[in-house]
Amino acid sequence: MKVCSIGVGLIGGSMALALKKHFPKTIVHGLDASKAHVEKAIALGIIESEAKFSDLSNFDLVIISVPVDAIASTAQKVLANIHENALVVDMGSTKAKICEELANHPKRNQFLPAHPIAGTEFSGPSASFADLFEGARMIICEPEATRLDLRKKAYQYFQQLGMELQFMTPKAHDQHLAYVSHLSHVSSFMLGKTVLDLESNEKEIFRLAGSGFASTVRLAKSNPTTWSAIFSENKEEVLTSLRAYQKNLSLFEEVIKNNDVEGLKQLLESTSRIKEIII
Amino acid sequence: MKVCSIGVGLIGGSMALALKKHFPKTIVHGLDASKAHVEKAIALGIIESEAKFSDLSNFDLVIISVPVDAIASTAQKVLANIHENALVVDMGSTKAKICEELANHPKRNQFLPAHPIAGTEFSGPSASFADLFEGARMIICEPEATRLDLRKKAYQYFQQLGMELQFMTPKAHDQHLAYVSHLSHVSSFMLGKTVLDLESNEKEIFRLAGSGFASTVRLAKSNPTTWSAIFSENKEEVLTSLRAYQKNLSLFEEVIKNNDVEGLKQLLESTSRIKEIII
Repeated sequence: MKVCSIGVGLIGGSMALALKKHFPKTIVHGLDASKAHVEKAIALGIIESEAKFSDLSNFDLVIISVPVDAIASTAQKVLANIHENALVVDMGSTKAKICEELANHPKRNQFLPAHPIAGTEFSGPSASFADLFEGARMIICEPEATRLDLRKKAYQYFQQLGMELQFMTPKAHDQHLAYVSHLSHVSSFMLGKTVLDLESNEKEIFRLAGSGFASTVRLAKSNPTTWSAIFSENKEEVLTSLRAYQKNLSLFEEVIKNNDVEGLKQLLESTSRIKEIII
Repeated sequence: MKVCSIGVGLIGGSMALALKKHFPKTIVHGLDASKAHVEKAIALGIIESEAKFSDLSNFDLVIISVPVDAIASTAQKVLANIHENALVVDMGSTKAKICEELANHPKRNQFLPAHPIAGTEFSGPSASFADLFEGARMIICEPEATRLDLRKKAYQYFQQLGMELQFMTPKAHDQHLAYVSHLSHVSSFMLGKTVLDLESNEKEIFRLAGSGFASTVRLAKSNPTTWSAIFSENKEEVLTSLRAYQKNLSLFEEVIKNNDVEGLKQLLESTSRIKEIII
């Protein structure tokens, strides 16, 4: 199989490596807005060589892993250039706007909107690894809009990579992900900023940080380009989840202000169910 | 050496195990508000047997690892019962109120306020392990108020456990810890609550959570009794750090609302220094 990976960062690079691991005859070419990323991806053996949009008619599978606000326009360029049995899959962390913008595309049935629930706080080709998707969930949206033979192929690829498929509407996807992923990133980025803002003597303060702080700000290391696009694309759902979070922080503030130790304990206990859910 | 560990949870239990590991002749007895904890600590070999406040004259070292709002009163009971060469050390995560309440105690010079920067999100005797303090920092407050021979002994014990000593005023301790520890816990507890509140179909949603969510809500598993006490004892500093955090969340909200993608990217980039600080 001939694959073109558009975007050779953490997700696109790992997808290239995973496909080559599980389908040994696969050849992957790549494309990236960053020349340095392309060179790095070639040097690391992630892709064989650089591709061009005008060459896309040679590929059977095109994976799009660029910032979410560039996915729809990239997909349009890709669809314009592929052969009639090629499959195009995007890996975006938001789905509603992308699906909407491509809904009426004449080649919509060659496109499958997907989102792997996998990643780390690191980015770029050098963060890629073949087993990133092993055991992870792959969310698929609007499968009925993709040609049956093509979507069946996609399912087979993902399952071969060790992924579990889950089907959701784009809207449900974006709502849920706002809570369990995007809000965690907002919280972490702003927590990192708060501590950096207020502590002039950095070394002093960070030497006092235990593993708890490291854990809560880990996501603040994530790629700002990737995440500013996700927050913008999923603006309404992110704002809704953020307001719910702010309300709870205000509730916490009130309870503390009122010296209500029992109320505070109850408030903390109300979240202890997390233990049973997240191991 | 004869040690009494008052509180045999994660910290007191680990301190008992660590002292026995590094000082093989040590005998540790224990005391805990929870009968079940005492029994568990004996069964796990953390302590030899249960102690009583009235027996404390037999011990050379008393470690206090109870919720911070009970430390000062516990220390008073302990100091009333020890012999004249015994040392009492507390392990509390807050220091200003404890130091203040004990400042004029007639046996203040047998007490040393300390705080190990070590812990996990788990609690109770079964969460204890001997190497918890290896390589960790031990913050010491007001050393000059502790008798020279006794504080020297304490430093030797902690260093033998692989800890690095750091001296701070109680106020500076509480200010810094509010930012790098207490605020992370507030953020994590309330993030956990927000997601639990809003998602009625729990299984569905948590199956979508990636490792990022697990990382940011990890601290929400922490013991509510321990943490409601810490937040209450360090109320003013926690509120100050929380307000700074809320301000940054509002700033984020504004930037998103205004569709200011470039501003958003800059905002996220402003925290990327975290990468160089937290590895």
